[in-house]
Amino acid sequence: MKAYAMLGLNNTGWIDAERPVCGPLDAICKPLALAPCTSDVHTVWEGAIGDRHNLVLGHEGVGEVVEVGSLVKDFKVGDKVLVPAITPDWNSVEAQAGFAQHSGGMLSGWKFSNIKDGVFGEFFHVNDADGNLAHLPDGMDLATASMLSDMVPTGFLAADMADIQFGDKVVVVGIGPVGLMAVAAAAIRGASDLFGVGSRPDCVALAKEFGATDTINYRDGDLVEQVLDRTGGKGVDRVIIAGGDLDTFDQAVRMVKAGGKISNVNYLGGGDYFKIPRVEWGVGMGHKQIIGGLMLGGRLRMEQYSDLWRAGRINPGKLVTHTLNGFDKVEEALFLMKDKPADLIKPVVII
Amino acid sequence: MKAYAMLGLNNTGWIDAERPVCGPLDAICKPLALAPCTSDVHTVWEGAIGDRHNLVLGHEGVGEVVEVGSLVKDFKVGDKVLVPAITPDWNSVEAQAGFAQHSGGMLSGWKFSNIKDGVFGEFFHVNDADGNLAHLPDGMDLATASMLSDMVPTGFLAADMADIQFGDKVVVVGIGPVGLMAVAAAAIRGASDLFGVGSRPDCVALAKEFGATDTINYRDGDLVEQVLDRTGGKGVDRVIIAGGDLDTFDQAVRMVKAGGKISNVNYLGGGDYFKIPRVEWGVGMGHKQIIGGLMLGGRLRMEQYSDLWRAGRINPGKLVTHTLNGFDKVEEALFLMKDKPADLIKPVVII
Amino acid sequence: MKAYAMLGLNNTGWIDAERPVCGPLDAICKPLALAPCTSDVHTVWEGAIGDRHNLVLGHEGVGEVVEVGSLVKDFKVGDKVLVPAITPDWNSVEAQAGFAQHSGGMLSGWKFSNIKDGVFGEFFHVNDADGNLAHLPDGMDLATASMLSDMVPTGFLAADMADIQFGDKVVVVGIGPVGLMAVAAAAIRGASDLFGVGSRPDCVALAKEFGATDTINYRDGDLVEQVLDRTGGKGVDRVIIAGGDLDTFDQAVRMVKAGGKISNVNYLGGGDYFKIPRVEWGVGMGHKQIIGGLMLGGRLRMEQYSDLWRAGRINPGKLVTHTLNGFDKVEEALFLMKDKPADLIKPVVII
Amino acid sequence: MKAYAMLGLNNTGWIDAERPVCGPLDAICKPLALAPCTSDVHTVWEGAIGDRHNLVLGHEGVGEVVEVGSLVKDFKVGDKVLVPAITPDWNSVEAQAGFAQHSGGMLSGWKFSNIKDGVFGEFFHVNDADGNLAHLPDGMDLATASMLSDMVPTGFLAADMADIQFGDKVVVVGIGPVGLMAVAAAAIRGASDLFGVGSRPDCVALAKEFGATDTINYRDGDLVEQVLDRTGGKGVDRVIIAGGDLDTFDQAVRMVKAGGKISNVNYLGGGDYFKIPRVEWGVGMGHKQIIGGLMLGGRLRMEQYSDLWRAGRINPGKLVTHTLNGFDKVEEALFLMKDKPADLIKPVVII
Repeated sequence: MKAYAMLGLNNTGWIDAERPVCGPLDAICKPLALAPCTSDVHTVWEGAIGDRHNLVLGHEGVGEVVEVGSLVKDFKVGDKVLVPAITPDWNSVEAQAGFAQHSGGMLSGWKFSNIKDGVFGEFFHVNDADGNLAHLPDGMDLATASMLSDMVPTGFLAADMADIQFGDKVVVVGIGPVGLMAVAAAAIRGASDLFGVGSRPDCVALAKEFGATDTINYRDGDLVEQVLDRTGGKGVDRVIIAGGDLDTFDQAVRMVKAGGKISNVNYLGGGDYFKIPRVEWGVGMGHKQIIGGLMLGGRLRMEQYSDLWRAGRINPGKLVTHTLNGFDKVEEALFLMKDKPADLIKPVVII
Repeated sequence: MKAYAMLGLNNTGWIDAERPVCGPLDAICKPLALAPCTSDVHTVWEGAIGDRHNLVLGHEGVGEVVEVGSLVKDFKVGDKVLVPAITPDWNSVEAQAGFAQHSGGMLSGWKFSNIKDGVFGEFFHVNDADGNLAHLPDGMDLATASMLSDMVPTGFLAADMADIQFGDKVVVVGIGPVGLMAVAAAAIRGASDLFGVGSRPDCVALAKEFGATDTINYRDGDLVEQVLDRTGGKGVDRVIIAGGDLDTFDQAVRMVKAGGKISNVNYLGGGDYFKIPRVEWGVGMGHKQIIGGLMLGGRLRMEQYSDLWRAGRINPGKLVTHTLNGFDKVEEALFLMKDKPADLIKPVVII
Repeated sequence: MKAYAMLGLNNTGWIDAERPVCGPLDAICKPLALAPCTSDVHTVWEGAIGDRHNLVLGHEGVGEVVEVGSLVKDFKVGDKVLVPAITPDWNSVEAQAGFAQHSGGMLSGWKFSNIKDGVFGEFFHVNDADGNLAHLPDGMDLATASMLSDMVPTGFLAADMADIQFGDKVVVVGIGPVGLMAVAAAAIRGASDLFGVGSRPDCVALAKEFGATDTINYRDGDLVEQVLDRTGGKGVDRVIIAGGDLDTFDQAVRMVKAGGKISNVNYLGGGDYFKIPRVEWGVGMGHKQIIGGLMLGGRLRMEQYSDLWRAGRINPGKLVTHTLNGFDKVEEALFLMKDKPADLIKPVVII
Repeated sequence: MKAYAMLGLNNTGWIDAERPVCGPLDAICKPLALAPCTSDVHTVWEGAIGDRHNLVLGHEGVGEVVEVGSLVKDFKVGDKVLVPAITPDWNSVEAQAGFAQHSGGMLSGWKFSNIKDGVFGEFFHVNDADGNLAHLPDGMDLATASMLSDMVPTGFLAADMADIQFGDKVVVVGIGPVGLMAVAAAAIRGASDLFGVGSRPDCVALAKEFGATDTINYRDGDLVEQVLDRTGGKGVDRVIIAGGDLDTFDQAVRMVKAGGKISNVNYLGGGDYFKIPRVEWGVGMGHKQIIGGLMLGGRLRMEQYSDLWRAGRINPGKLVTHTLNGFDKVEEALFLMKDKPADLIKPVVII
C-alpha cells in the first residue's frame, strides 16, 4: 500500500509499505482524515526518537474500519471511528495502576509512528479496537474529529495534571494547538484569571475565544515579571507548559505560588537537563509540584471529549486553519506543520 | 438597635436587640444589602434548629465595617465587605483537618442566626474578621455580592463534593438559587450533559443560561426513568441534590452509575431517616458514593468566587429577581422567600 | 469433569460439568488449593443472586496452568498462579474509568460462580490470563495464597475506600476473615486507635495480632455508646463495615465524626433498604461520606499484596484455621463455612 | 533572660535577651526539653537564611506554659505542652487553601529562629496557643516529645507527599533522624519493599527496626544501579529525599518508574539549581511527579502523631542517642549536631 514515511533523518517520502495485518483484537482502518503534528516534525527533523527507516508517519486522524479481528465486539466493517494517538495495552499492570499510556514501559502506549507504523498510509492498524477506538459521533465533522486524536486529550491532560481548583489563576505557556486546548480545558475546569502566553495574532484571538482572560507576549518583557505584575506580585496557582523550552521550567517555578502546581505536556525535544531554581523552589520546601505527562489514550477519553463537544463545551474544530483534500496532500500538510506560516494553527487533510 | 428576629416558632417580628460587642479579632458591620434564605424559613416555620426566642435572623448580606478589633490587620472602618454565611474558627482542630465549617463540632462554623444573632440588624458581628471577611471587589453590585454569602459557595460545594471529571454526565435535582449555582459550577467544572431538574419557567430558563444542556420536569414522569431515557439506560456519573426531599436519595442511587457520586447540599428539614436501596446500591458493593456537606465559609472562598465573577465565569446576580429598598423591607423579603411567588428566584434588600 | 455446584436453591452437590474452553486470551487451570467463602453460602442458601442450576461454586483458590490461549504472553503450562476472585475486562470503558470490577455493568467483573462457573471444578477458566493471573511467589504456601483471592483484596479495599490518614481513629465492624484483613490494612495505612468489633475469641486474638488496639463486643452494650465512650464522646474518623447487617449503617453514621468516612465491603444479602439518620448525618450537611465497593481484581493487586506478604507486612495465612486435604473435601469445607464452628475463621482445601 | 543565640555568621553564644511578650492569643513557655536540629547548623554555619545578629536559636522542644493571653481557651499556666517547629497563622488565606506552613508567604509559617526568636531561651513565645500547642500526653517522656516538634512531622510529611499506596516500593535517601521517621511513616503507610539509603551503622540498624526491608550504602556503588538491581531493573514507585544534595534529584528521577513520585523534605542549603534529566523524565511526558515541602505545623498534627505513639505505631524516642541535662548543655548539644560523632542520631537536653 502507499504510505508517507520517514525515510531517515531529515528525509521523508512516499513508500510502498506492507498492508498491516489484523490480529484477533485489532482493527484495520482506512483514513478519512489525517493531521500532521509537531511531534512528526520532531521525529523526522530533530531525530527525537532516533533514526528510523521507512517508518510510516502520523498519529492523528479519523478512520473507517475495513477489517476487524474475531474477538472485536463493538466495531464492524464500515464503522467510522475516532482514533486516539495513544493506544495502550489495557490489561498491562501499568494500565491497572492508572498509567495506561506507559503500558509496557515509559511512553510505550505510544505506538503509532514510534513502535509501529503510523496512520499516514492507505490503511493503518489499531491494537485492541474495543479498548482504543470510539464511534464517530453523529454530526461531528472530520476536522473536529481529527483534533480528538491528540490536540484535545493532550490539552485536557495538561489541565487534569494541573489539578485546577475553582478560582485558580492559571498561566498557559504556549498557545499553539495543544496550548489552546489547554486554555479551553482550564476555562471549563474552574480557572478565574487565565493567561495565555504567545505572540501569533490568530492564536491570541483563539485563546481569548477559548476562555483566556488575557494574553501575554513574551516579547513585551520578562515573562515572570509580566505574570507577577498581573497578580499583584503573588504569582499564579497553576502553570501549564505547552510550549517554550527547557528554561520554561525555571520561569514556571518563579511565577507559581507556594503550594502551586506546574503541569507539562511539552515534548522536550533536546538538551540533557532542565533546571529548578533552589531558592524559588522554597529551598526544597515550597510545595511547588512539578509533573509532566503523556495523554492517556483509549476509548473512554475519546467518548468523554466527544460528549464535551456535543454538549457545546469545546469547539476544537476551530484549531483547523488549513484544510487540504486528498490523501496525496499529506506531504504538503506535514511541511505546513514544519514551516509554520504565520496564519497556521493546524492543517487537516480530508480524504 | 433595631433587628428582625425569630420571636418563637412560627413567629417573627422587629425587636430592639443589643448592639453586638467587638472582640479583638472581630468586626462590627452595618448591612448594605441583605437577602433572606430558605434556611431562615426552615428555622422559623419548621423549627429546624429548635425553638428560639428573639434570635436575629439572616446570614446573607453585604456589609460596611463600622468597628474593628485591635488585632484585625486587613480591614478598617469604612471598608465594604463580602460576608460569608459560615464564619469558622480557623485555628480549631476541625479547620486544621480541612473541615472548618464544622469547627467546634458538626455545623458549628455556622454561627449567624444559629449560635449567635444573624445579620438582619442595624449592626452585625463577624468573628475573626481577617479570616472571614473579604473586600467587596471594585465594580461588584450589591445584589451579586449578596449571592456570594451562601448561594454561590453552597452551589459550588455541591460541584466540589461531586468531584466532577471532564465529560461527566450530571443531574442537578432542584434548580432554585442553590441548584442554579450548582448548575453553573458543574458547567465550569467539566460536565458534558448537564440536566437540571425543576419545573418553574424562570428557573428552567436560567438553568439553561447557566450551562444546563437540558432540563427535566419531574411532573412529566418518573424522574429516574427520565434520566435513564436520556442516557441510554446507563444513568449518570454524578447526581447533585439541591432540592427534593428524603426520597431524592433513593432516586439518586437508582440514576447514578456504578462508580458514581451523589452530592447533597439540601438542608434536610424533617423526617428521621432517608433510605438507600440495597440492590441498586450494588448489594453494598456498587461504588456509589454518598456525601452531603455545608459550605466551607471564610475569606479565601469569597475571594475565589469573586475572582470567578470578575473573570466572567459566573453571573450570580441573575438569581436576583426581586430587589427591595430600605432596611424595613427585610420582613417583606423574608415573606417573599416563604411564599415563593411563581416568578421568584431570590429577593435582595438594598439598604 | 467433576465439579461441586449449586444444584438449585438450598441444594449443592457434585456434578459432571463441561471442561471449560480456552479462548485466545485465556487460561485453563487445575486447582492446587480452594477455599469456600461466605459469599458461596449467600449464593446457595440465601439465593442472593437468584436461583441457579448446576452452577459450579467457588471463587477463591490457587491454580496450575494446564492450557493457555494463543495471545497469552506471560503464563505457560505448568505455571502456578494466584487467582483473584474478580477477573475484569480490562479494556472496558468502566475499567478505563478506574472501576474494572464493574466492567460491563455493576458488579460484572465478578465472573466466577456468577456469570460463569466457579473454581470448584477439576478445571477452571480464567479470562484474560495476562491481565488477571499472577505468578505464585517463591516460598508462598498455598493457604496464604488462597487468602489473596478475596480476603486480602476485599479487606484492603475497605481501608482504601476509607481513605485512612495518619493518626485516624478507626472502627472495623465485623472481624471475620475480611474484617481481620481490614484491620491489618488499617494498621499499615496509618490508623492510631483501631477498634475491632466482634465477639469470637479467636477473631479477637487475631485482630489484636493484626494491629487492633482494642476490640469491642457488641454484646457488652450499645455499640455506638461503646465507641463514643472510648473516644471521649467525639466518635471516630473512619468506620469500616465488614459485618453486621443493614442497621450497621445507622450505627456507623452515629459513631463517625463530621468529616468522617464510612466504607462498606459487607455483601448485603437481604432487605430492601438501609437507613441513614437525618440529624446525625448533619441534616444533610455533616460531611459524613458513605461508600461501599467490590474488590478491584486483576493481576496488579495480586502482585502488590504478594509484595506486602514478602516484605513481612501482612500474614494472611493466619486466617486459615482449618486445612483439609483432597479435592473431594470441598464439600466439607463449604459446610464448615456454612455452619461456622466456634473455632473457625477460614478453611482451605489443599489438593 | 538567658538565651543561646546566633551572634552572627559562624558565631554562637549565650546572650541576655528580652523576655518575650504575650499577646491575647499567645502563650509564653519555659522549656522542659530542647533539641538542636541540623537546620540550626545550616542557619549559623552556612548562612542559609542570611546573616542574623542575636537571633535566639532552636525550634524543637517541650514546654511548660508560664503565661497565656486573654483569648486562649485550652491552655493554662502549668500545662506541659508539645511545641511544633512550625506555628502557622491559621486564619490566613494560605492556611485556608491547605498550606498553613506558607501562611503569609512561602515558608512564613516557620517562625522560630527565623521570623522571631527560637526556643533556646529561658522562655519562648508561641503564637496562637490554641491553634499551635498540644497537651503533653500522659506517659510520654520528654525525649519522645521533643521528636514531635520537627523530626516526626517532617518525616511523615515526606510519606504524605509521596502519596504511598499499598504495596509500593519505596526508597528513602538519607536515614538521619528525619529520614528514619520517613522510613517509619512509609512502613505504616503501606510500602512493601522499603530501602533506606545510608551508611552509619546505628542509622542502618534503626532503619530496619523502623520498617526498612533493606538498606543501601551509596559507597557500595552507584545508587541508581543498586536500586535498579534490587527491583529487576524496573525502579521504584516512590522516592523520598531526606538527605543527599542537589544531585539527588537527578538520581531520584532515574530510579523511579513512570507514574512514580519524588518527595523532598531535605532543606537544600546551597547552590543555584538542581537538574532534572530530560530523557529519564520521559522527554517531559513520563508522569514522574516532583514535590518538596515544609512540615505543616499546628496542634492537630501534634495530636495525631501523639496518638500514633500512644497506639504503639511509632517510637520516635529511639532517635535520641545522646541525652544531656541542664539548660546550659544546649551549646554542647548544638555542637554535637554540628560535629556529628559516629554514634549520634539526635541529642536532647532535659531541663
